Amino acid sequence: MDQLLSVAREFIVWLEAYERPFVNDEHLDIELIRHRARSLGLWAPHLPKDHGGLGLSLTDFAQLSEILGRSPLGHLACNCQAPDIGNMELLLEYGSESQQRQFFEPLASGQVRSCFAMTEPHQPGSNPTMLAGKAEKDGSDYVINAHKWFASSADGSAFAIVMAKTNPEAKPYQQYSQILVPTDTPGFERVRNIPVMGHVGSGYFSHAEVRFTDCRVPQSHLIGEEGSGFALAQQRLGPGRIHHCMRWIGIAQRALDISCTYAQSRAITPDEVLADRQVVRHALARSHAEIQASRLMVLDAAGQVDRLGTRGARVAISTIKFFVAGMLQRVLDRAIQIHGALGLTDETLLSYWYRHERAARIYDGPDEVHMDVVARDLLKKS
Amino acid sequence: MDQLLSVAREFIVWLEAYERPFVNDEHLDIELIRHRARSLGLWAPHLPKDHGGLGLSLTDFAQLSEILGRSPLGHLACNCQAPDIGNMELLLEYGSESQQRQFFEPLASGQVRSCFAMTEPHQPGSNPTMLAGKAEKDGSDYVINAHKWFASSADGSAFAIVMAKTNPEAKPYQQYSQILVPTDTPGFERVRNIPVMGHVGSGYFSHAEVRFTDCRVPQSHLIGEEGSGFALAQQRLGPGRIHHCMRWIGIAQRALDISCTYAQSRAITPDEVLADRQVVRHALARSHAEIQASRLMVLDAAGQVDRLGTRGARVAISTIKFFVAGMLQRVLDRAIQIHGALGLTDETLLSYWYRHERAARIYDGPDEVHMDVVARDLLKKS
Amino acid sequence: MDQLLSVAREFIVWLEAYERPFVNDEHLDIELIRHRARSLGLWAPHLPKDHGGLGLSLTDFAQLSEILGRSPLGHLACNCQAPDIGNMELLLEYGSESQQRQFFEPLASGQVRSCFAMTEPHQPGSNPTMLAGKAEKDGSDYVINAHKWFASSADGSAFAIVMAKTNPEAKPYQQYSQILVPTDTPGFERVRNIPVMGHVGSGYFSHAEVRFTDCRVPQSHLIGEEGSGFALAQQRLGPGRIHHCMRWIGIAQRALDISCTYAQSRAITPDEVLADRQVVRHALARSHAEIQASRLMVLDAAGQVDRLGTRGARVAISTIKFFVAGMLQRVLDRAIQIHGALGLTDETLLSYWYRHERAARIYDGPDEVHMDVVARDLLKKS
Amino acid sequence: MDQLLSVAREFIVWLEAYERPFVNDEHLDIELIRHRARSLGLWAPHLPKDHGGLGLSLTDFAQLSEILGRSPLGHLACNCQAPDIGNMELLLEYGSESQQRQFFEPLASGQVRSCFAMTEPHQPGSNPTMLAGKAEKDGSDYVINAHKWFASSADGSAFAIVMAKTNPEAKPYQQYSQILVPTDTPGFERVRNIPVMGHVGSGYFSHAEVRFTDCRVPQSHLIGEEGSGFALAQQRLGPGRIHHCMRWIGIAQRALDISCTYAQSRAITPDEVLADRQVVRHALARSHAEIQASRLMVLDAAGQVDRLGTRGARVAISTIKFFVAGMLQRVLDRAIQIHGALGLTDETLLSYWYRHERAARIYDGPDEVHMDVVARDLLKKS
Repeated sequence: MDQLLSVAREFIVWLEAYERPFVNDEHLDIELIRHRARSLGLWAPHLPKDHGGLGLSLTDFAQLSEILGRSPLGHLACNCQAPDIGNMELLLEYGSESQQRQFFEPLASGQVRSCFAMTEPHQPGSNPTMLAGKAEKDGSDYVINAHKWFASSADGSAFAIVMAKTNPEAKPYQQYSQILVPTDTPGFERVRNIPVMGHVGSGYFSHAEVRFTDCRVPQSHLIGEEGSGFALAQQRLGPGRIHHCMRWIGIAQRALDISCTYAQSRAITPDEVLADRQVVRHALARSHAEIQASRLMVLDAAGQVDRLGTRGARVAISTIKFFVAGMLQRVLDRAIQIHGALGLTDETLLSYWYRHERAARIYDGPDEVHMDVVARDLLKKS
Repeated sequence: MDQLLSVAREFIVWLEAYERPFVNDEHLDIELIRHRARSLGLWAPHLPKDHGGLGLSLTDFAQLSEILGRSPLGHLACNCQAPDIGNMELLLEYGSESQQRQFFEPLASGQVRSCFAMTEPHQPGSNPTMLAGKAEKDGSDYVINAHKWFASSADGSAFAIVMAKTNPEAKPYQQYSQILVPTDTPGFERVRNIPVMGHVGSGYFSHAEVRFTDCRVPQSHLIGEEGSGFALAQQRLGPGRIHHCMRWIGIAQRALDISCTYAQSRAITPDEVLADRQVVRHALARSHAEIQASRLMVLDAAGQVDRLGTRGARVAISTIKFFVAGMLQRVLDRAIQIHGALGLTDETLLSYWYRHERAARIYDGPDEVHMDVVARDLLKKS
Repeated sequence: MDQLLSVAREFIVWLEAYERPFVNDEHLDIELIRHRARSLGLWAPHLPKDHGGLGLSLTDFAQLSEILGRSPLGHLACNCQAPDIGNMELLLEYGSESQQRQFFEPLASGQVRSCFAMTEPHQPGSNPTMLAGKAEKDGSDYVINAHKWFASSADGSAFAIVMAKTNPEAKPYQQYSQILVPTDTPGFERVRNIPVMGHVGSGYFSHAEVRFTDCRVPQSHLIGEEGSGFALAQQRLGPGRIHHCMRWIGIAQRALDISCTYAQSRAITPDEVLADRQVVRHALARSHAEIQASRLMVLDAAGQVDRLGTRGARVAISTIKFFVAGMLQRVLDRAIQIHGALGLTDETLLSYWYRHERAARIYDGPDEVHMDVVARDLLKKS
Repeated sequence: MDQLLSVAREFIVWLEAYERPFVNDEHLDIELIRHRARSLGLWAPHLPKDHGGLGLSLTDFAQLSEILGRSPLGHLACNCQAPDIGNMELLLEYGSESQQRQFFEPLASGQVRSCFAMTEPHQPGSNPTMLAGKAEKDGSDYVINAHKWFASSADGSAFAIVMAKTNPEAKPYQQYSQILVPTDTPGFERVRNIPVMGHVGSGYFSHAEVRFTDCRVPQSHLIGEEGSGFALAQQRLGPGRIHHCMRWIGIAQRALDISCTYAQSRAITPDEVLADRQVVRHALARSHAEIQASRLMVLDAAGQVDRLGTRGARVAISTIKFFVAGMLQRVLDRAIQIHGALGLTDETLLSYWYRHERAARIYDGPDEVHMDVVARDLLKKS
């Protein structure tokens, strides 16, 4: 494992040359960086070895993921980027044999990308029982009608996994199913990439509004059982949240690292550098403490998942979801303040992360939802 | 005054139609909105009546400015936008007759725009005595060599006011002068618009890196006396900071207003809207309190400037600079969290402000510098 | 007014000699300090001149009250301390002629003290419609049965004003009345002084648990009309909250003042004092900004009360209640941290205030209740 | 270990009966609770088995200490309370054979208590090289002259360990030594117990000002080598800080536990309890997350001490010192707010902890000192 982490660290340093062009919207040759990740033995760390991955436990993956998270390109290069990682994990565990062949394998090998279409523009993300999109049986097909947004990376995806109501008469949490939809299916429309934080984005780096209009797929595209959509979403989102938290720690640590370097190099008087200012030093110390706390929390939650499964680690996952997201926002904010005007430019990665990771406190359940999960558990036990 | 504010309020509502296209990088017809501002009697509120303005006191302008600040286009429409407003005020008070004719008048009438070139990429913004750019006398000219950045709105400007070292032997705070440089002067180069928060920007909405290479202007382009650069900068930045604070309050108030509206319209269960959540309500209440505190602080500081001049109001100005900037950041952050994913998109103005106004805690003196000013004053008095 | 404030400032400096003994639980001769307050013309500033007071507007009283608040003894010395000030204001406006003679006059002249018994130990302070204490008519009397606590200063009081249910069939907010009960009435029992923050306290400086058991008073002791208890409580608590906020600003300002003095005198190296530490300076600056914001907010709210009455100023009052209480807690906390171990001892007033004013965020409506009031108003208007 | 923790948990529940009287200043029979701790096999968990202790690693002790920390009496009952625990650890490792017999053994067995006299009222606690107290050699004795304060538990102590300058000509950090002084030595004077947060305290629960006037002890009372005072202090304070952090987590966890219980039992409307309020629930969730983060940080730091020694774990210790102290203050503050007026009374332990643990951010190095330690390390590595 130490060897692997060390290789990953070098890879991330190598990746730096591709970051500045990337955040400045220049062309990025994804295949090139993926090729190198592959050749270094960093491909698909989350997958079992017999599916071409590294077969890491979640705890081990957590450590690797922090390192990959130091670069906005790290996970993508290693084919363990959201939302594909979640789709791979889902299909590997719950996909039928034919689904694995048709959808999982091309994804695991990096031939295609995919997306996940759950959130709807006119329904609250915090209450999934209000999702309106539906899939109705017709002959041997499902006919899907749904309006979704924040389908990240839909632009260029080969297929989507859509959450749709299949059993309107069932109990609220048993009404939905997850269904595979190739994006070339008639009736699937990517309406647009949504402008987010000033960018429309494209390809992997985008968030789409999509519409399913009488979109017809065979019932064999249902994942798992009918009505299991929520249960599967929980299975998916649990590790997904841990993956995000791991990545955020990598971001935060790098923001701290470059702040330390900058603070020591930036003269503010002929005799002093920024690091001579007590307020700057204390900002660094606070960030270090919060990052270290987050790291231990995430490793602990990953250990719980390894030992107890996603369901058993549910409260630990909700706890880190809001705790680490809050840490990330504060650490980035301090790093920008330390960098002054430079921190606002795109000459460092700070501005990129500042914009893109404000979402951390919102996606995969906003802070408020996770706090409620934690509180309910505390109250139940007391 | 009430009549004026009422007109301004209507104007800002009218402007809304131009905002969404603007934040989504579509073409903006500035002349069109300026024409309407002019016809409504809102032109150049900060200028005396005999210079085509409204002749408002700073306290009155503060109230108007809050309203204009509700739109990212408000001040620009009324020709009271930074950095032009600062250049106008400076030239009006300290410019020679010929400078007023050549530079002030076209600016005041809106025929041209201008910029201010002080900050240097390799020197700390927090310590202006380390600025390296210089202007040397040669015959009847100054020959300017300087490397500046964050010259906001340089793109498209007719002239720059540059801060350059003219008296290297003088005491630190008497070494610099402010000099007018038409941008078509040989040796003036706009190197690039700096990518800031993911945007290169253009025209008024940009921040340039500029270089002066053996750039020659007549000595009559000196503003005020040689060595008075800092004294003038203080004169300029004092009201400038108040202008910013006023504008921020407008932003914050609008962010709160749209949050209140959204919280009441967004269903989160079949029976409840966001505003039924206590955490949302308390976020609104906190924002209201902080905005109201900021408003009173700014009006009080403006009143001090009106009564005591910029110098006498120095501590009040530094106090609001960091206090109001901090408020703005918190209020915008809460507004985004209330809006959820929508708050990250460019379908509201929140994301635009979140990105662009992170700078508020940095430009015109970072928080840290202003806290030191306030603390020194407290300690001196105790 | 300036003259009055100046006298008050000198009085507060004179009072300092009595503070240290007081916070160290030594005997305090209240009559002595009241005698001086009287002789300086500072007696009962909130009362009209024809009732022996200074006849100040609330705005003027706010300014005086900040100065008095600098000492824990200031308001008591001038006979404008809670809860007596609230009782005086209530009786003056709503008391019958005989009530004024029997209860108001001895209070206004400082011959007796009084208390207010509303909160009940087993009922939530945040929801007054759940108060259980009741007063039933029997002949020409009310027979009161109630269990109250946090009846501040009941120890040594000549009378209590009790909130009791008189109209159980009426609408929730019209069920209660306020009734005067001399403390020597049979059935009135002061059960104990409640140990609060480590102190049982005594006399004025205590908070009692009291019990009314078949406690019989003539119906003429009813204040105002039957069922008007809540309306009167609102009348009482509005100005009461402003009085508290004013006082808190005095406390905070003095905490900041002594912090400035200490920071300049305390050596931390042979060459440096605490004030040379940037973190200390910024703490001072933050406290200054927050105090100044609070001061302007309170003066603005007081002005609204003067112009619009308590009801019209309701939202402004709720806003300052939580805003200023939060400021106070932060300013005291910073002052203690600056003082280090000394700040924990009773050699400064900081520790006294730290303990006693934690209550500020709870009494007269906790933060949470006032935030809800503010939010409801914002939402109603939007 | 699980068995031990389970016994400890039961012991702490048993102790509850002694807490309320204790915080209300009633007599506490320390021998009685110590007798029970002993009989349950909980005595001196930090000491090796051959010295009558439990022989726990620091990591194991951390887990036990959290449980003991739930009661203000837990550590005292088990004879692992500061400052005695530090004195025991010091003497065990560095004491001569005769010092161990004369001082360590009675302490380890609980026959006597002791204190540590380092801080001086007129010297900054944050800069120990400025301590003025000195011990001069005279014949075979040291003659000590020093003025100390915050000598916790000096009241009733059998001996003090005093930090005094013995080598004024040496380098700053090699000028001091630690010397044992029986409190019945002529010239040792406990001037007073310092009133702290409103309490003078007595016996174990007090903080004394002490004076050494020509106080003469044999040179054999020197601990370790002359000039090693700082090195020993670091050895002592490292684990000491971890002990405190462990204890704070116990306090915080209990504050959260009782908040959960109270929130579920306190009705705020006929149909709702406090726990139905979202703001209350989120406060609980935040506290849980911060406690859990602190717990993992402390266990990690304890592990580092076990593996690398105090010196190797230095940065981890400074990190938890300020991180956990800050957590404690916030958790207690939230718990009080949830309890409302009840939280201010001495009917729960919250008010006791609120007062007594404000010191956590100050003693054994204030936050500011530890942040500087952490920052220096970060900067050195970058």
